[in-house]
Amino acid sequence: MITLDCPMPQLDFDVITLGHGSGGILTNQLLESGVFDLLKNPLLDEHHDGAMFEWSGRTAFSTDSYVISPIFFPGGNIGELAVNGTVNDLAMCGAVPKYLSLSFILEEGLTMKEFWELLVSIRRAAEKAGVSIVTGDTKVVERGKGDKIFINTSGLGNIHPQAHISTKNVRAGDKIIVSGSIATHGIAIMSVREGLEFETTLTSDSAPLNHTVKALLDEFGADIHLLKDPTRGGVASVLNEVARDSRLGVNLFQQPIPVLEEVRGACELLGLDPLYVANEGVFMAFVPAEKAEEIVQKLRTLEYGQDAAIIGEVTTEHPKQVVLHSRIGGKRVVNMLVGEQLPRIC
Amino acid sequence: MITLDCPMPQLDFDVITLGHGSGGILTNQLLESGVFDLLKNPLLDEHHDGAMFEWSGRTAFSTDSYVISPIFFPGGNIGELAVNGTVNDLAMCGAVPKYLSLSFILEEGLTMKEFWELLVSIRRAAEKAGVSIVTGDTKVVERGKGDKIFINTSGLGNIHPQAHISTKNVRAGDKIIVSGSIATHGIAIMSVREGLEFETTLTSDSAPLNHTVKALLDEFGADIHLLKDPTRGGVASVLNEVARDSRLGVNLFQQPIPVLEEVRGACELLGLDPLYVANEGVFMAFVPAEKAEEIVQKLRTLEYGQDAAIIGEVTTEHPKQVVLHSRIGGKRVVNMLVGEQLPRIC
Repeated sequence: MITLDCPMPQLDFDVITLGHGSGGILTNQLLESGVFDLLKNPLLDEHHDGAMFEWSGRTAFSTDSYVISPIFFPGGNIGELAVNGTVNDLAMCGAVPKYLSLSFILEEGLTMKEFWELLVSIRRAAEKAGVSIVTGDTKVVERGKGDKIFINTSGLGNIHPQAHISTKNVRAGDKIIVSGSIATHGIAIMSVREGLEFETTLTSDSAPLNHTVKALLDEFGADIHLLKDPTRGGVASVLNEVARDSRLGVNLFQQPIPVLEEVRGACELLGLDPLYVANEGVFMAFVPAEKAEEIVQKLRTLEYGQDAAIIGEVTTEHPKQVVLHSRIGGKRVVNMLVGEQLPRIC
Repeated sequence: MITLDCPMPQLDFDVITLGHGSGGILTNQLLESGVFDLLKNPLLDEHHDGAMFEWSGRTAFSTDSYVISPIFFPGGNIGELAVNGTVNDLAMCGAVPKYLSLSFILEEGLTMKEFWELLVSIRRAAEKAGVSIVTGDTKVVERGKGDKIFINTSGLGNIHPQAHISTKNVRAGDKIIVSGSIATHGIAIMSVREGLEFETTLTSDSAPLNHTVKALLDEFGADIHLLKDPTRGGVASVLNEVARDSRLGVNLFQQPIPVLEEVRGACELLGLDPLYVANEGVFMAFVPAEKAEEIVQKLRTLEYGQDAAIIGEVTTEHPKQVVLHSRIGGKRVVNMLVGEQLPRIC
């Protein structure tokens, strides 16, 4: 959605061509057409091969390439996702994200209108997360050698002074909190994926989680043992990674896991387990049992934390295994995602 | 070229499939198969959403996505290029590169053998440049939605204490030094590009320039006013950018511009001007006239600097224009690259 304050500049081209990746006149024309103005900040304005700045302290550095299809989806687009995704990866390190790099791989034929809409979303998402795009790159590949647009963002943040996030800090007895309803992003994407379209009012949960995480760290500091955002592979895969790396077990309780009614319905329809469906605006926190309820209460007062719940606990029983305790009292081992549920979900 | 110390691990798959980008078992299998071991270092070993470390001082941060085709070419491959390219961008900021992120977009069907060969090259290039791969990401797209492999690297380096690199420092009278023979990378790629194949013994000049740049900065410090690597768009486009941004003119002298005999021949054959052909192992330095000869002499003693030469100077005449003084005494304006000479050169 392009609003009035970011109108697309008048250009003498409507679509991206190979020349826009040449490093010559067309590349400069594209960037000077409004791209640099839209993302404007003193570091980017230097137009050098990299951004240069003073930096100090404990630092987190993260990267992700975004290949989601379709590039516009209910509740977001690949541009916004590329900002939020890396912002969230930094937040999961306990960091306050500050600078992002932004690198495009455009497919010849992408319309300038689509590209501009993504750029506007990138700017808005960066503003909302409180980060600046300080350096970038634009490549173009031939028609049929890409898929409209792929975006890489890498990011830098200073680690919160009270944060001490590491799988090594996870202890038997720790409670596992999820910050919101799960599986919404994946189901929203599926609803518009070619061959799968179904009617729903669901929108992706894509969101910047850094302000929420910072509020938790301000209050609970090193009691936040580990943070993880269950994107690809969903809650089940991430919990399995933690179980494997910590050599501890996880008990997962089905009853309190928040899932929106419409998402639950779609999962049943599609034969999917919400535990494997991707999320973009949800994180999990591993915290001491005695603090867990207080942290959940705090989360519920914060943006993106209203549906927070305790969904599991860490145990010395069944090391490296995740065991689900079902609503009706059954138990079963939950493995990592096998195969591929829905490619290009992020 | 895989040598004996990095044998490909035994795997139960030969090609990359969509499942390797799922975030589940196959993604973990791929990464644990030897990828993490190959790139091993304490920061990467944390397996978190980002790398975490102490950092301080003046910093350069750069990003580039690499889409070169073909992915293996005379003298290099996309893996090595992805390391050298970002290392060089940092070096052009006057920085000593230290940490890189590494993000893959793989096309379904890429063979594991090819991927492993690229990974080994990445490790070797990182070792040679003295950088560590500290965080990464792997995505897979469907066959026909990518082109074997695209790689993004982003990098961090500390700016050399004596460095003060900026277009703002360029002065009328500054001499322009090129560190080596130009146009070699582009011609080497063209020689193997589909539809253009021709016989040559040329190999790409892809190389890490950071050690060479550091040696210059150690000795000449702030006398190095500006550094630029003429990749896409070649020497002509980069000089035009500097002329535009500095609002000064550039006189370029054809006679001393180093071009390998074989490259010159290929350019004539293909009707190309070497000034527009891409380089990967060459940089330009803008330096005070009175230091220029000394800097060239120093460069000639350094790795990748043997063919260094003074090829131009900055002038207040013809602001924002680059004027070439030909061997036979003619003069002509040299513009930025118009259109696209050879797509996907880096």
